[in-house]
This record gives sequence, structure tokens and C-alpha cells, in this order.
Amino acid sequence: MFCYRTRVKYADCTLGNHVYYARYLDLLEEARGELFRSIGEPFLKWQEQGVIFPVYEVHLRYREAARYDDELVIEVGLTRLRKAFLDFACRIVKADGAVVLEGETRHVCTSLDEKPMSIPPDLGGALQPHVRAGH
Amino acid sequence: MFCYRTRVKYADCTLGNHVYYARYLDLLEEARGELFRSIGEPFLKWQEQGVIFPVYEVHLRYREAARYDDELVIEVGLTRLRKAFLDFACRIVKADGAVVLEGETRHVCTSLDEKPMSIPPDLGGALQPHVRAGH
Amino acid sequence: MFCYRTRVKYADCTLGNHVYYARYLDLLEEARGELFRSIGEPFLKWQEQGVIFPVYEVHLRYREAARYDDELVIEVGLTRLRKAFLDFACRIVKADGAVVLEGETRHVCTSLDEKPMSIPPDLGGALQPHVRAGH
Amino acid sequence: MFCYRTRVKYADCTLGNHVYYARYLDLLEEARGELFRSIGEPFLKWQEQGVIFPVYEVHLRYREAARYDDELVIEVGLTRLRKAFLDFACRIVKADGAVVLEGETRHVCTSLDEKPMSIPPDLGGALQPHVRAGH
Repeated sequence: MFCYRTRVKYADCTLGNHVYYARYLDLLEEARGELFRSIGEPFLKWQEQGVIFPVYEVHLRYREAARYDDELVIEVGLTRLRKAFLDFACRIVKADGAVVLEGETRHVCTSLDEKPMSIPPDLGGALQPHVRAGH
Repeated sequence: MFCYRTRVKYADCTLGNHVYYARYLDLLEEARGELFRSIGEPFLKWQEQGVIFPVYEVHLRYREAARYDDELVIEVGLTRLRKAFLDFACRIVKADGAVVLEGETRHVCTSLDEKPMSIPPDLGGALQPHVRAGH
Repeated sequence: MFCYRTRVKYADCTLGNHVYYARYLDLLEEARGELFRSIGEPFLKWQEQGVIFPVYEVHLRYREAARYDDELVIEVGLTRLRKAFLDFACRIVKADGAVVLEGETRHVCTSLDEKPMSIPPDLGGALQPHVRAGH
Repeated sequence: MFCYRTRVKYADCTLGNHVYYARYLDLLEEARGELFRSIGEPFLKWQEQGVIFPVYEVHLRYREAARYDDELVIEVGLTRLRKAFLDFACRIVKADGAVVLEGETRHVCTSLDEKPMSIPPDLGGALQPHVRAGH
């Protein structure tokens, strides 16, 4: 799976000194963005070409809280890549191997006015190596 | 279901002029907090008594984007209230009735060091009327 | 001064159980937005007419931390309202009267492409009663 | 000055496709944190030793909006380092050299219960090379 590394910031935390449950979604978005950049074109280039990838479902299981200054690895891969659909499996892991969160975010490829459209073939081809075995 | 009303703020939005997908979780937390306040004791009072409610699962389906200044109704009810578990069904609806998001957030009742514990009986009793029929 | 009331949310806090220093700016923006709504037209209506109010300076003095679930009053008034400039004095106060923060946010009235323009006369007139004595 | 590089994320932006004015403070905090890490001990280590650095003033001048996916350099240096006071000058610059923001954040060195205390001598010594000429 594609790995994106980051560190927990003050702005990510809430009382109890752990990452606020919503902020993990920020991290997942960052990781998806870096996956796209790594295969050629960042989200911004696709958007300039009239293609966006709005989320339609999120499923997350929170395992262990991440804390301020923790180094995190965010793993992202694809579990579906077909027609207009891109489903991403994700996992956030601490430096010591503890799993913080795992789950899936499901997206649809659309035009800027949010009409579903097929994933552009060159994007589909570049994403193909990130589709996980068994899918 | 319990209804909490709010309005979309600049800080909730991202490019494309819609609410950023993670920010809906902020709104859901606000609504759960106001539900607790409405039945007697806000989260803070429970925390001062050593009881917290960390999330362990989130399942969300995004239907239609909410935009800046939209008035939203956030509906929250319980689908499970048993032993240490509190599962909340949630729905965010615009003033015109359009459904923005629906789903579930699942929580466990724990001590401050995150050891599961039974939901305090008086809290359980106060939450009982918010358990949705069929559950 | 115009008063906007709100309550500190989990999403506003960081470790140490106080509001994160950047989040007070979210609250100030909410208060300015409600001031505009109270005098007739919310920000969104002005934006639809091609008028926005980007910030160009922020000066804040942090007095005492606000904490989760604190009730806050956010006071906003104008210290300058002339040509293209709108300067807002602001103060955040707890229910017990303790001052959390005070300062100023300075804005310029512009077209959507961020060219300065005179404040529309009807807006200027409606804001005039909020200009603080001595200014 | 110390330079920290980052990229604008979806979560940083708001409608109008620019960084929300409060989010720059998140970036400034990240940069100060990386400055501390670079000279030896991250904030977290100081906090574990009972020393924190709450903000007491923020002064910012916004020059040009940063946009999604922009690469930013955040420059941080000290303008004061004396007794309990640490004042940081800061500047955010785009890859093309355009200045996004400049200003100052002022902090006080305190114990965990927010009583001012002298900056620990080893920290003061390590920060000394980051004090800007003329200060």
C-alpha cells in the first residue's frame, strides 16, 4: 500500500490529549492526495481538467488513540476501481506498529457539477498498481 | 429523534464551497453533546465523574453537500444502549428537507484510562427515551 | 457592542484542555457574520452581489484560556468604517466575566477578484450604529 | 531564519479557494514546533518536564492568499528571548517568492499551571542562534 508519513500536531488534538476523531479524516485526505501526486497528477490538476472525486461513504474503526507528536504512517490502497468508483482502504499505524485506525473511504469520479463520469483511462491505468490483491 | 440546529460556518467549508467531509463529524459531536445536555448532564460533568464515551466506529453516507450559511438540522438518536455500548444514528438535513448525510457513530463507555465500564444507570435511564423504535 | 453567544466544543480544544489559539479566530468570524446578519444581509448575500471582506490584519491579546463547554460571549464592534476599510474590535468574555481575548481584525471591502472598493452605502449606513464612540 | 516547508491541504481552505485566515496559525505552530525539534527537544519533551509556552499575543498581516496545493515556506526566528519571554517573527512565502503573511507571535514560558518562569538556560542557549540580528 502507498505510505504517507506525518506527525500529530497541536491543531489535531483535543482534550484528553488525543487526536480529535474528525481530524483523522484530514490525514486520510492528505494521504490520498499524496498517492495521486505520486502516480503523476495531484488532485488540483484533475480539478483543473474538470474532474473531482467527492466522498460518498466513510467507514472507520478506531483502534488506539494517536497523541501529540506521534509519528504516523498512513497506508492507502484501492479496493475498487471501476467505472466511476474509487474505494480506498486505509490504515493509520504508529511508529511502534500499533494500529490507530482502519477503514474505507468511498469516492465517485464526477465533473465539477458533481455528475458521475468514468474515471479517465490514464488515471485508471496509473492507479491500477495500487489496487489490492483480492479486489 | 433529538434535533440540534446550527448553521454552516466559513471554518467548516473548503474549496468548491461545500462543507469539508471531516467537519460533519464536528457537527455530529456537537449534536450528541447537546442531546446529553438536554437529558441532564453534559459530557463535561460525566468526565468530571470519570466517565467518557470514546468513538470506536463511524459509518457515514454523504448524500448532498451542505454549503456556507446553510441552516442544518442534525438529528441524533440511539440504536443501541446496552452494557458499555452507545450507538448513535445520525442524520443531517437542510432547511429544504434535503438529506446531507446519514450514518452511525458507535461509542463505548469507559473510565478516563479508557477501560470499558457499564453505562451509569441514571444515564442509561435518561437516554432510554432516545432509543429508536425497532432497536 | 454586538454580542454573539456560543459554547466551546471538543473540536475547538487541544491538549491541555483549552481552546487552541487559532480557533478563537473561527469564533470571531462567526460573531462578525452574525453582526452582519443582524443588520440585514449576511455575508453570503454580499458575496452573491460581488462584495467580500478579506482580512488584512489580526491583532490579538490572549488573557485567559477558555475551556471545553465554557459559555462565551463574543463582543464585536467597529473602530473604523471608512472608504474600503472595516476594522472590528473584538473581545471574548466568559460567563463569569473573565476576559479570554481581546483585539482587532482589520478587513478591506473588495470585489470577488479582491480589488478594493468602497463599502456599499446601504451597508455602511447599517453598520454605522456599531461604530464605537471615540472612533 | 528557520524554514519549515509544507503544502496547503483541503482542510486548510475555505470557500473562495484560499486558506482560511485562522489556519495560518496552525502552520505557524507547526513551524515553531519544528524549530524546537531542530535545536534538540520538541515541545512534548519540555511539556513532560513541566514547561510550556502559551501564546499571549498574535499580530499578523495578510498579504496574498495561499491556495490549495501551494507549496509554502514558513520562516520563523526570534525577536526576543529574555527572562520568560519568547517572541517569534514569522513569514509565510510561496514558492514564487510572494509573501502570504508576516507577523509575530509572542509567548511566555510557564509551568504547567501557567505560572511564568525563566526560560531554561539550555533551551535559551539553543535558541540563541535563532535570535535575529538587531534584536
